[in-house]
Amino acid sequence: MYKLRHIKIIGTGTFLPKNTISDKEIEKKIGVEDGWIAKKTGVIKRHFVENETASEMGAKASFEALKNANLSYEDIDCIICASGTMQQAIPSTASLIQREMKKGKSGTPAFDINSTCLSFVVALDTISYMMEAKRYKTVLIVSSEIASVGVNWEHKESASLFGDGAVAIIIQRDESKKSKILSSKIETYGDGASLSEIRGGGTNIHPRHYSEETKEDFLFHMNGRAIFKQAYRVLPKMVNELLNEADITKEDLKLVIPHQASLMAMRIMRKKLGFSENQFFSFIHNYGNMIAASIPIGIHEAIAQGKLNRGDKFLLLGTSAGLSIGGIVIEY
Amino acid sequence: MYKLRHIKIIGTGTFLPKNTISDKEIEKKIGVEDGWIAKKTGVIKRHFVENETASEMGAKASFEALKNANLSYEDIDCIICASGTMQQAIPSTASLIQREMKKGKSGTPAFDINSTCLSFVVALDTISYMMEAKRYKTVLIVSSEIASVGVNWEHKESASLFGDGAVAIIIQRDESKKSKILSSKIETYGDGASLSEIRGGGTNIHPRHYSEETKEDFLFHMNGRAIFKQAYRVLPKMVNELLNEADITKEDLKLVIPHQASLMAMRIMRKKLGFSENQFFSFIHNYGNMIAASIPIGIHEAIAQGKLNRGDKFLLLGTSAGLSIGGIVIEY
Repeated sequence: MYKLRHIKIIGTGTFLPKNTISDKEIEKKIGVEDGWIAKKTGVIKRHFVENETASEMGAKASFEALKNANLSYEDIDCIICASGTMQQAIPSTASLIQREMKKGKSGTPAFDINSTCLSFVVALDTISYMMEAKRYKTVLIVSSEIASVGVNWEHKESASLFGDGAVAIIIQRDESKKSKILSSKIETYGDGASLSEIRGGGTNIHPRHYSEETKEDFLFHMNGRAIFKQAYRVLPKMVNELLNEADITKEDLKLVIPHQASLMAMRIMRKKLGFSENQFFSFIHNYGNMIAASIPIGIHEAIAQGKLNRGDKFLLLGTSAGLSIGGIVIEY
Repeated sequence: MYKLRHIKIIGTGTFLPKNTISDKEIEKKIGVEDGWIAKKTGVIKRHFVENETASEMGAKASFEALKNANLSYEDIDCIICASGTMQQAIPSTASLIQREMKKGKSGTPAFDINSTCLSFVVALDTISYMMEAKRYKTVLIVSSEIASVGVNWEHKESASLFGDGAVAIIIQRDESKKSKILSSKIETYGDGASLSEIRGGGTNIHPRHYSEETKEDFLFHMNGRAIFKQAYRVLPKMVNELLNEADITKEDLKLVIPHQASLMAMRIMRKKLGFSENQFFSFIHNYGNMIAASIPIGIHEAIAQGKLNRGDKFLLLGTSAGLSIGGIVIEY
């Protein structure tokens, strides 16, 4: 069943809106006491867009990643936008990012893969097989999210949680076969589809139905407790399977980069999964939950902070709306 | 560079809303003379939803495909929704289809791939590498589109063009190695991203901005002539490359299943590409342009009508918003 894919992360880049919002500002806005957010979701700072679009942020992160990888756009064989939100209903955000990069005549294949917060994990997993089979050598994966536009300020927990921004990761087939994807797994439990959703905005509740009565349909709704309960039930088994397939133990993992769902959820999950505090990378305090951008921003930060060095094994792990769970074990 | 993927189409199914709309009804609605639509877009009949949702239609088409393939849901290893429209902003339509199939506890991986009208082609191309590498054996790809909700009735051409419906295709790794994907190619030209779009509904123009002044932002806009001009320039080269990679000639193709963009566009393109009338499969008169569902519904119809038999080689070919072009040569 199992097949290695020799894929190397060769460059990362981010773009964060310059407008930062503190926990104090949010606490005032949602009407809770001082310190509530630090305790509840742990998000001390997040970025919110002013006029930036998802494709603008994505293009800027991509240019940074190209620079970081010491490549030019022409080295890229495929662009995937792996985001849980779209810039506009049609076309794909990936094509808008390509245009924003002023490469709209290039012909570089560009499309979107969407599994909400797990979009990056699913995109990396999926595209790695095309790369291993030599269809594409170098791929740009971009997660660019504007969560702030859909925040429901009546829901204190989710309102205090989210942040905006973009991250770009460039991956390349590793001919030296040193860097690789050791195992990966995705599972979807559609019974949980309503636990985390924006009901409107698609073909089911068209924007023409927007009104004072329906406005909540166009905002983010989340039952954090129920999602956590479901994830708590199925994640430990998946982590074991991922480790078994990769033929390693928990101790072999230098780092776990979890989706930054919320500080409390991550704390309990870490203990349940049996990882040490040193292994489990939490950076939600500076960014908030950035939907699909959370996990790749973790990769970017881990490399920048020297937490990941070539040869280290690490695990990307998360839950998403859908409800999906997923993980990838990578040798960096 | 080039790698065969031994993938077999083993079942297809469709669901069409029972509400059918004739060209005469649309002609009355958009205020054009009798016969205008037959001449202009060639769509004599199309289906429009009443209360059906995308996931409902997708689930019904999937059940039909399972029956056609003589499989049960448990044989499916992965569900991809390959549609140009979403049912709701969050989560993926694939997870909603899984829930609608009453398999929301199954854990079957489910996610969306979006390249507007080429979503099916991109999904089939992409997932085939995972299947060849033995990650998944049997995959369900669903394209379920509700175009009618976004039609701009002020734009006579596009208003007369679209139809709703769903199609499901089940593909399986072919251990006998008889059925296969011989070649595939996708190109994106982001400079054409505004030639076919719905500007609103995503993070850029949130539904809260819906008003009498902005309502066109939430409807489909298309410059058919400009898209055609761009496609005309780049498609012939791609078709040649697809044939070369597959090591066949035009005459070896039993059938070309083009995206059903419009009757006139297909006629000119067929001549430009040098295919015979017999080879070029047009079925737009009964369905309209069904966005990403057009190409897979062509597969379903071609099999049902006996136009495709095992061993036949055929080409899926299309353009999409983005602007993308793409094609796949398959040995059925």
